[in-house]
Amino acid sequence: MPTVTLLSQAELKSLVPLDADAVTCVEEAFATLARGGVAMPPILSMAIPEHNGEIDVKTAYVPGLPAFAVKMSPGFFDNPARGLPSTSGLMVVFSSETGEVRAMLLDNGYLTDVRTAAAGAVAARHLAREDASTAAIIGTGLQAELQLRALTLVRPIRTARIWGRSAEKAERLAAAAAALGLEAEAAPSAEAAIRGADIVVTTTPATEPLVAAAWLEPGQHLTAMGSDQHHKCEIEPACLARATYVPDRLAQTRILGELRSAIAAGVVDADATFPELGDVIIGRAPGRRHAGDITIADLTGTGVQDTAIATLALERAALHKTGTRLAT
Amino acid sequence: MPTVTLLSQAELKSLVPLDADAVTCVEEAFATLARGGVAMPPILSMAIPEHNGEIDVKTAYVPGLPAFAVKMSPGFFDNPARGLPSTSGLMVVFSSETGEVRAMLLDNGYLTDVRTAAAGAVAARHLAREDASTAAIIGTGLQAELQLRALTLVRPIRTARIWGRSAEKAERLAAAAAALGLEAEAAPSAEAAIRGADIVVTTTPATEPLVAAAWLEPGQHLTAMGSDQHHKCEIEPACLARATYVPDRLAQTRILGELRSAIAAGVVDADATFPELGDVIIGRAPGRRHAGDITIADLTGTGVQDTAIATLALERAALHKTGTRLAT
Repeated sequence: MPTVTLLSQAELKSLVPLDADAVTCVEEAFATLARGGVAMPPILSMAIPEHNGEIDVKTAYVPGLPAFAVKMSPGFFDNPARGLPSTSGLMVVFSSETGEVRAMLLDNGYLTDVRTAAAGAVAARHLAREDASTAAIIGTGLQAELQLRALTLVRPIRTARIWGRSAEKAERLAAAAAALGLEAEAAPSAEAAIRGADIVVTTTPATEPLVAAAWLEPGQHLTAMGSDQHHKCEIEPACLARATYVPDRLAQTRILGELRSAIAAGVVDADATFPELGDVIIGRAPGRRHAGDITIADLTGTGVQDTAIATLALERAALHKTGTRLAT
Repeated sequence: MPTVTLLSQAELKSLVPLDADAVTCVEEAFATLARGGVAMPPILSMAIPEHNGEIDVKTAYVPGLPAFAVKMSPGFFDNPARGLPSTSGLMVVFSSETGEVRAMLLDNGYLTDVRTAAAGAVAARHLAREDASTAAIIGTGLQAELQLRALTLVRPIRTARIWGRSAEKAERLAAAAAALGLEAEAAPSAEAAIRGADIVVTTTPATEPLVAAAWLEPGQHLTAMGSDQHHKCEIEPACLARATYVPDRLAQTRILGELRSAIAAGVVDADATFPELGDVIIGRAPGRRHAGDITIADLTGTGVQDTAIATLALERAALHKTGTRLAT
């Protein structure tokens, strides 16, 4: 009798914390993507303007993995007024060999939060200077906090500067960072946060640039992870002209990432090619060449990360006998 | 506390039989599609050639409905050798207002079977002659049987002729049809089945035409529902030149349906437009004009049918207090 494993958000939080294993899992996913053979169709996206909502569906098949995930991510932006989070969703895991449903991960977006933050750590591990110790975080939401925590897993971060439109939220995140043992403060401006930082992470839903190219300094690494839609943009297009640019998935950043707005601004040719993060991980492309280089990682989120983190969750659920098994 | 309703295939079979209500539900879905305002993004499709498998994901948002479904349909064609069905899958139902997960319908493709057969009935109701009494079914699988049953819901079918590559399966289906009270027989050839029939339904995974244009007779209606992929094709392209052609969704039949092969053969212009089934239902387009017309419905399957049938299933589950409720 085939069974389907059902895992709740609480169970998934305990099974898959944001830790070094999660970072390695996502790093390996990008490496596999670079080695080829991964099937990753374009994202299915549907807008529901009547309710200020949208849903994105992502998937990827990774050769060698016993299962693949289909992730459904709704975003309904009037929800906060109802006391509900904007984003939710789940992943359904299928057998790669038979297509049978293996599991339903009712994570309400938790695994996406983890795999997205882990991708920030992977980018920093392969692009930031080894001695990077000061982080600037632009944005004050949950992902801002997770990106900062993820950086501490891969670089000797001691200092954090936080900037967001809400000074109150920036103060709150700085307090959370201080509780992690960091020297943390809310910055008076994005520029003040960025000047002198070793790593900058932008993690906002901005549709206009928050980071000016003139603020970037030699030796910095910047990860822009907010733009994942056709209308979003966090950094001035001229930033790309000053930096070694590394997309998570080139075909996707051309239409959804910072590369999209740089192409639209004429800063980058529409058909310009760049090695992807996975190419840097497997050593096919150099990434950072000199301590004085500026590097930019453009993260739009990939189905291969979802399949990888879902596979990790299921392995651990089996090991710890967590979850509810349903006969089907 | 929000809850998610879980419905098994057995529960869904008892809640949503193939009956007049299911036909009306799907008819209304096509009418809504024609009236506009429906969001129905292109299908997400991923092939897994290593395992002779594929997965399709469909969705649609219908204004006025409280929920929308995301349907995941795996097809793994080596499964029969393992004693498993080729197709399986499930639907996840989300609130249209908040994006929260409302239900998981673990139907293993059952609801797709019902809504697909119901679409055949809708096509016959609006395109076949009122007095159509003889059905020719090309194909011998589950959908062949369901299409025949669906026809009996909308037309006074008395006679059925079945043809398929396997004479044994055709005999078996003829016996099942006889048990429904029909005069039924396995036909010696597709041509013998089709000549003199009032309604023809092709329900095969064929990639080469099984129906020659020369066999079609004045007054016939043909529903081709097998082609839903870029490489499939059941009827000779010249059939379209002899008939009033009605797609379920024009943008989709151009790339996945019989229209695709007719365009490829040069029988139809690539940008030719045709009223859709929903247009005929709401009276915006005439459909059949004369008893002697030949009509063809090209059904590739639409997300709006999935959202409609999932909504019906959930309404009935609430009414009958069926299913398992999970706190999330």
